[in-house]
Amino acid sequence: MSSESASAGQGALNRFFKPRSIALVGATEKSLWSNMAYDNLQRFGFAGPVHLINPKGGIIYKRQAAASCTAVGEPIDAALLMVPEAALADAIADLGRAGISGAVVLSSGFAELGASGAQRQQRITEAARAAGVRLLGPNCLGYVNFTSASPLWTTQLRRPMEDRSVAVVSQSGATAGQLAQFAYQQRVGFTHMISTGNEADIDIADAIEFLIGEDEVRSIAVFMETARRPAAFIRAVARAKAAGKPVVVLKVGTSEAAAKAAQAHTGSLVGDDKVFGAVCRRWGIPRVHTMEDLVGVADLIARVGPLKADGLALVGMSGGMCEIAVDQAERDGVPIPELQKETLARLRAALPEFATPSNPLDVTGGAMLKPELLETALGEIARDPGVGIVVHLFDAPAKIENVGIGRVFLKHIGAGFAAGGKPAVMLSHNYMPVSGDARTLAEEAGIIYSGAGLSHGIAAIGHLIAWSRVQRAAPRAYAQASPKVVLRPVGERAVLGHLATSGVPVIPGPITRSADEAVAEAAKHAGAVVLKIASADIPHKTEAGGVALNIRGADAVGAAWVQMMDRVRAAKPGAHIDGIIVSPMRSEGVELFVGTMRDPQWGPVIAVGLGGVFVEALKDTSLRVLPIDESDVLEMFTELRGSALLDGFRGSPAVDRQATAAAVVAIGNAALALGEELVSLEVNPLLVAGSRVEALDGLTIWAD
Amino acid sequence: MSSESASAGQGALNRFFKPRSIALVGATEKSLWSNMAYDNLQRFGFAGPVHLINPKGGIIYKRQAAASCTAVGEPIDAALLMVPEAALADAIADLGRAGISGAVVLSSGFAELGASGAQRQQRITEAARAAGVRLLGPNCLGYVNFTSASPLWTTQLRRPMEDRSVAVVSQSGATAGQLAQFAYQQRVGFTHMISTGNEADIDIADAIEFLIGEDEVRSIAVFMETARRPAAFIRAVARAKAAGKPVVVLKVGTSEAAAKAAQAHTGSLVGDDKVFGAVCRRWGIPRVHTMEDLVGVADLIARVGPLKADGLALVGMSGGMCEIAVDQAERDGVPIPELQKETLARLRAALPEFATPSNPLDVTGGAMLKPELLETALGEIARDPGVGIVVHLFDAPAKIENVGIGRVFLKHIGAGFAAGGKPAVMLSHNYMPVSGDARTLAEEAGIIYSGAGLSHGIAAIGHLIAWSRVQRAAPRAYAQASPKVVLRPVGERAVLGHLATSGVPVIPGPITRSADEAVAEAAKHAGAVVLKIASADIPHKTEAGGVALNIRGADAVGAAWVQMMDRVRAAKPGAHIDGIIVSPMRSEGVELFVGTMRDPQWGPVIAVGLGGVFVEALKDTSLRVLPIDESDVLEMFTELRGSALLDGFRGSPAVDRQATAAAVVAIGNAALALGEELVSLEVNPLLVAGSRVEALDGLTIWAD
Repeated sequence: MSSESASAGQGALNRFFKPRSIALVGATEKSLWSNMAYDNLQRFGFAGPVHLINPKGGIIYKRQAAASCTAVGEPIDAALLMVPEAALADAIADLGRAGISGAVVLSSGFAELGASGAQRQQRITEAARAAGVRLLGPNCLGYVNFTSASPLWTTQLRRPMEDRSVAVVSQSGATAGQLAQFAYQQRVGFTHMISTGNEADIDIADAIEFLIGEDEVRSIAVFMETARRPAAFIRAVARAKAAGKPVVVLKVGTSEAAAKAAQAHTGSLVGDDKVFGAVCRRWGIPRVHTMEDLVGVADLIARVGPLKADGLALVGMSGGMCEIAVDQAERDGVPIPELQKETLARLRAALPEFATPSNPLDVTGGAMLKPELLETALGEIARDPGVGIVVHLFDAPAKIENVGIGRVFLKHIGAGFAAGGKPAVMLSHNYMPVSGDARTLAEEAGIIYSGAGLSHGIAAIGHLIAWSRVQRAAPRAYAQASPKVVLRPVGERAVLGHLATSGVPVIPGPITRSADEAVAEAAKHAGAVVLKIASADIPHKTEAGGVALNIRGADAVGAAWVQMMDRVRAAKPGAHIDGIIVSPMRSEGVELFVGTMRDPQWGPVIAVGLGGVFVEALKDTSLRVLPIDESDVLEMFTELRGSALLDGFRGSPAVDRQATAAAVVAIGNAALALGEELVSLEVNPLLVAGSRVEALDGLTIWAD
Repeated sequence: MSSESASAGQGALNRFFKPRSIALVGATEKSLWSNMAYDNLQRFGFAGPVHLINPKGGIIYKRQAAASCTAVGEPIDAALLMVPEAALADAIADLGRAGISGAVVLSSGFAELGASGAQRQQRITEAARAAGVRLLGPNCLGYVNFTSASPLWTTQLRRPMEDRSVAVVSQSGATAGQLAQFAYQQRVGFTHMISTGNEADIDIADAIEFLIGEDEVRSIAVFMETARRPAAFIRAVARAKAAGKPVVVLKVGTSEAAAKAAQAHTGSLVGDDKVFGAVCRRWGIPRVHTMEDLVGVADLIARVGPLKADGLALVGMSGGMCEIAVDQAERDGVPIPELQKETLARLRAALPEFATPSNPLDVTGGAMLKPELLETALGEIARDPGVGIVVHLFDAPAKIENVGIGRVFLKHIGAGFAAGGKPAVMLSHNYMPVSGDARTLAEEAGIIYSGAGLSHGIAAIGHLIAWSRVQRAAPRAYAQASPKVVLRPVGERAVLGHLATSGVPVIPGPITRSADEAVAEAAKHAGAVVLKIASADIPHKTEAGGVALNIRGADAVGAAWVQMMDRVRAAKPGAHIDGIIVSPMRSEGVELFVGTMRDPQWGPVIAVGLGGVFVEALKDTSLRVLPIDESDVLEMFTELRGSALLDGFRGSPAVDRQATAAAVVAIGNAALALGEELVSLEVNPLLVAGSRVEALDGLTIWAD
């Protein structure tokens, strides 16, 4: 929707997703969907009126049905449409007349089937727009608002959820159902579950915007195939970031085959995965790849909240387990800091002799006999300044009646967590369901408990740490690089000229119009020079004899100038020649590739790589959404597989990363200044010799 | 143990691990360990006599205890020692006199504490050897033989396991306990659980050897920190491979921090992780990184058995799920082949119009209404020639009393699996426990069911495919390259000479003793030549003026020879000079690095990488245990990050991979021929220009 009508639309969405009254349109005891939807409303105890609508009227579910929404004569906020496709347009018009703010359209058989389905979808979308009704779907399962006990949902729901903090938005209804099942099992409480289906109207971005405004929502878990409105999606995640609510995303289509499958199944256009990765980085989106992690990460961040420091302190009662955890932490980039001397000394005093104070800390089986050890150890390790979060490996007892000594352990663990004063989580050793009793026992002891197990649990901690880091960072004040260049630079000189005026260091290379001018220019440089023909008509200079390397001395420069001009004129008689470029000859340094590109979905991005084989044969680049700042570039350098080469190699000096980062930022801004018609701006190579950074060549590609 | 006494040792181990009678030495109602051990024996219903031994005799557990094993006067096969360290040696001597074949030593406080503990461990080991008693431990929890209902185990066991096929060996007792807990939850049946602890005597290799001989054992899951006898470990896994029993390994120490933690906790030496990876590849060891996968992969392979083909056909009832699966498969290297035209046509005929025939196959929610669709779809997709295994995503109903329509689905899935005639697995969508009812319902329908969920389940399928491939492959007949070279080649010429006689193509480079000889030699080559001083006393030739590149023509070669000899003699007056090497000048080709190394644990290995920055700065190499064959090398090439460079770059021709592989195999054999004193043999570069492969330089490093 357009932004001017956004707040009005938001109001309608609020009414739709928090209805005080509901209509089931097409209600009939013969339909499985109708029965399920009605049953869900009953079991959840929806507080407002539920109106049954059937053109034939009559008695349904032992109640009087109305022939239309208009006929009800009372205000209705939301409708669930369960009518045949042929009847949809009329039903929507009826909703409009009855002043209903939004409707779920369940039916499949629209855009997911291809062009003809898309046309039919367009028709119902237009009908809804004309009627002033927002649509969820088609090809979806509806939504459940657990906070207001309003399920407009057509498969069986087990029960309202407790301890709600995670909202789910899913483009696949079946996947949302699976996520709910897993959430029940792990005792993760959903606030909302919104299945957006084909997104004829309401899409992920709308759903996220609505959820940000809901107090109970602490985090938002998204399953998506595509972002139909990338800019709106970005606005929504940026708002979520500002509101401190993580948007955790499982986006399929990382593989080629998945992109194909998505097209077959839902008619989505799956964007370039690497670009989406850059989008996630920019807006601090935790990105996961399994349903278990989608639920687990959203739950962990919702319950723990942002960390003040990065380091993980890990405590367990088995050395083997601690070793597995450490390997896992390294794979997930979770820092397990060494403890300070003072912490080690305090732990040594507190622990039995056969336990070695360290991080991870194995309190050994000795803690089985002296559970108060746990309290001391957890308190001491948390107080270490390098520690931002504490994890204790312990399986919560599944049943209160068998809890036995378990309750004593939990008491000491809870007390240790409290004594430490840092965020802390008790984590099961392996994946295991969390029973109601387990959750109760943990809460009794003031413990945040997760049944995600070592492997997924530590991965989730990694996401929490990364998300917290982005939340802690000062908001970036990116230079507002708005398009301001009217002319389109094309050709090496023009592009390098534009780069130079944009603050990119560029190798000197004036165009000389005579041999004398060239000799005078060459005299300005200490060593040898390079001559290159300057002509927009000659893209392949070398082939035309238009490049001469390593020329030394006035005589040689003069002779080379004359020979080149003769040679090129002979080879390209029709070409317009501006003159010959004279540049100093560079023989050392690290070659970088810096290129911008306009992604059709996500807009301008920038790639940095090592030049030569690295970018050309190995595609070893790091990508970011533009604009960027220097800290982005410094991070990009570390992501290159060939990163070590920046630190100097075979006697070549280390790259001045800060100076290089400044040049890369300037290249990004230079691209943005060229406006939306620019497809790509490439600097190849950006040559870096210590702190001398120079663009040696530049190239633009334009939209037509 | 030495191999000559192996079969006698094996007999003793058989008796120890399958006891007909057991002694609990140090039994007392005051000890938690004693109570647990006795309780486990009672609950499992161990069939033979259990003798309680306590020096004070008396009544324990309402039975008469004996003062010693000798005093029992009946044959005893195995003992559990629960006595203080000071009493251990006497207790062991008593076992010996009573003819007991082996004993579990629980106590900790030995080698895991460092040098003094290691000495104490050595003393009990010697006592056991003197008494002819095999030891399990110390610092372990014992073992459980579920197949013979004999638990010598000192923490609580829930119950004997059903459907047993997976044996567990673990260097950490607590980790074994966690694995068992997870196995109960996922309804995976263990045949044995052996906690080896500090491995004073019985180690992983012994345990694996014992387990291979047990019929019920279909796979062996190993948690390890180190292999104390690498050669014995390799013999054991090679035997397991021949017996068709996978050894699945979770080895910690992949990170530096874990290696440190392992040293702190168990006194283990954690070997180089990359070398262990090469060991796993050679013997087809599925290597996992989480406890969930250790249990899951061992279980899946045990139940499915070897596949005849690689491809996975995936069937589900949700498009979103299929997309997640496809991404996961790509990450895990699981091939999801495209289906043949005929298969697609048959599926199109069988499925509703809104389902698109493809792999993965989304049968859509339509299957909810027509479950017989599943049967047809599963049968048809399995018959595709590219399919080696079928996975259907479906959660088994947890409770028989609520099964409802679920049983109908299972019936059709089972019938579809049977109709397809290929190995097939029903996999839950997410991680979920497998209830007894779920297992029963699946078995009723003839279905192999796993609750590992999409992510771990597909990873397990990947291991199954890789393991099956190794099992299917013809046994490798590696050339028996035994050490046969008496002289130690040192210096470029000698090393290249040894390589040449070993069948490695080497660049021509005879030593010339006069300018005339050099001119004659140079005349044999079409282009320019290189001159290099030949002297074992001059390792750095360039610095001594001992290298001249790109010399063309007889006069230039003669002059360069004389000048070089003068120059080097002036620079290195004391050096013994053999002459000057004349080689053709090479200017094109891909530089490879090939180096062998003797790993202190695992013996000789070979690394292959691209030369220059790739190996020096990026450490981009692939590693294998020697000897290797050409198919190993071809596989190694694909593992290099810079692999694409082998296919030609910037006009240089593609590398002849077969010819290069032959040269690499020959280099490996050349290293083996040099015997165990050789630390390293390096060829750098091995220059490859199309099918011309040449070692340009060689270097050896020796043990002293």
